[in-house]
Amino acid sequence: MRVIEIPKEARAWVTARHAEGRRVGFVPTMGALHEGHLSLVRRARDLADHVVVSIFVNPSQFGPNEDFSRYPRTWESDLRMLDREGVAMVFAPTPAEMYGPRFSTYVTPPKVAEPLEGPFRPGHFQGVCTVVLKLFQIIPAQVAVFGQKDYQQARVICDMVADLNLDIDIDLFPTVRDADGLALSSRNRYLAPADRGRSLSLSRALQRVDVAYRDGVRDGQELERLMRQVLERDGVDAIDYAAVVDPLTLLPIRELRSPGAAEPGDRSMPAAEPGDRSMPAAVALIAARISGTRLLDNRILR
Amino acid sequence: MRVIEIPKEARAWVTARHAEGRRVGFVPTMGALHEGHLSLVRRARDLADHVVVSIFVNPSQFGPNEDFSRYPRTWESDLRMLDREGVAMVFAPTPAEMYGPRFSTYVTPPKVAEPLEGPFRPGHFQGVCTVVLKLFQIIPAQVAVFGQKDYQQARVICDMVADLNLDIDIDLFPTVRDADGLALSSRNRYLAPADRGRSLSLSRALQRVDVAYRDGVRDGQELERLMRQVLERDGVDAIDYAAVVDPLTLLPIRELRSPGAAEPGDRSMPAAEPGDRSMPAAVALIAARISGTRLLDNRILR
Repeated sequence: MRVIEIPKEARAWVTARHAEGRRVGFVPTMGALHEGHLSLVRRARDLADHVVVSIFVNPSQFGPNEDFSRYPRTWESDLRMLDREGVAMVFAPTPAEMYGPRFSTYVTPPKVAEPLEGPFRPGHFQGVCTVVLKLFQIIPAQVAVFGQKDYQQARVICDMVADLNLDIDIDLFPTVRDADGLALSSRNRYLAPADRGRSLSLSRALQRVDVAYRDGVRDGQELERLMRQVLERDGVDAIDYAAVVDPLTLLPIRELRSPGAAEPGDRSMPAAEPGDRSMPAAVALIAARISGTRLLDNRILR
Repeated sequence: MRVIEIPKEARAWVTARHAEGRRVGFVPTMGALHEGHLSLVRRARDLADHVVVSIFVNPSQFGPNEDFSRYPRTWESDLRMLDREGVAMVFAPTPAEMYGPRFSTYVTPPKVAEPLEGPFRPGHFQGVCTVVLKLFQIIPAQVAVFGQKDYQQARVICDMVADLNLDIDIDLFPTVRDADGLALSSRNRYLAPADRGRSLSLSRALQRVDVAYRDGVRDGQELERLMRQVLERDGVDAIDYAAVVDPLTLLPIRELRSPGAAEPGDRSMPAAEPGDRSMPAAVALIAARISGTRLLDNRILR
């Protein structure tokens, strides 16, 4: 497994693979890897001949009061895990390499960045779009794999890719959960053992809304109310949002449509199950805080 | 000469040339071609095996009160000229192809977009950066050639390329002038014959500042005063700016430095003469209006 720090060297490595007629799959990460990341690596391995993983804790996507400095860094363990998964190259630039002293060009994210996380993390998706665009230029892979756990992020990136004609396919892979249902996240290690029980309220609330949808509830506000009921009962400290939204625009849905096939040519992404590109009825998303830790989870309703 | 309207087909054409081991040079234009554009095409031919020219009057770089709808369109004549120059492919997308109904991602231009044109054309460089980034993704050429006539635009694009890790070299080619000194521009056709004389004041003012610099004047404000003197004497209707600025940052220079070699690793672009990458002392730039037509010109001081 090669580890490359310098953008031009990383690009040369990828273009050499292209010259050999090989497909390259890319998984961008901020390190602190867990089984969720590894599932993306395995998915990329299925879609390409070589897998490149980037490890870069991107300062520009953290707000001034967020956890950039204490974000977990587990470099040695990350490299061991990726090596075991047969990753061909790790791109791990320094912040100085990515953002020189005169750096001043940004990507203004698409509209789909505005709801949900938008008001809670101003500037976050600008930072995400800018670094992902840069990474896509440095690692010109055929396909990049993102986790469904950050559903809005994946939608933002899909729209950026379409709007800016970036030459890469975006693949979405289902969230990996612990046995008790908690969605894996690098930030879960902030949770005290005593908070574990309350943290399960997110997946429980999503489970509740899924059952209600299957039972025929189609009213968006009613579905949101059911989610909030579970979250409040289980005692999260704050609900940033608990929303049932359109899978493409992420805007609220008053009345959920019946699941239908995706129209050809739209920029829906593969939702939920790999290979299933049919358009879901809605996505339920939650952001909630427990003892100062902000947790996200979502579920696709179909 | 191939003419392609569809982005994916244009990209496939370029990547097929790469697969053959050929270098591709790119000249983005808004059509209404003149000898200035053709000089860029010839320069691109010197730098690459195949030349691609785009023709796209980009709506997003025109302000609401600017000349988008009356911007000259000379499609048949453009194609004839490019065919004669041995251009291999013309990329001519429709606005609907470039900006779909849900388009909403933009490039926020680098700091160098703020002075000079910045206050006079709000949003202009955002439109330029966004479309040029899109074009660079659709036409993944090894090199793109821009005219020195739009010096600030070239600087903006160079900084965007560096900041966003775009994999393309930017080449700057000197301004082509009519025999009387007027810098060629598609907008010159807006000038009434009676305005021709006054339009020469821009090149005269730049000539004046160049002579003064060679005569040893090093005071930036004094050099600007000399330019304004010529422009006012010759009766332009308004001077938007007449500035002597740093060639990289485009910020005013109080005291001009002696010409020196460019530091390695900076993102200076080849200034003035092809092949001469030494750092000039300054750039003098003018924007002035004559009977409602806005004219730009500049001169590199070395």
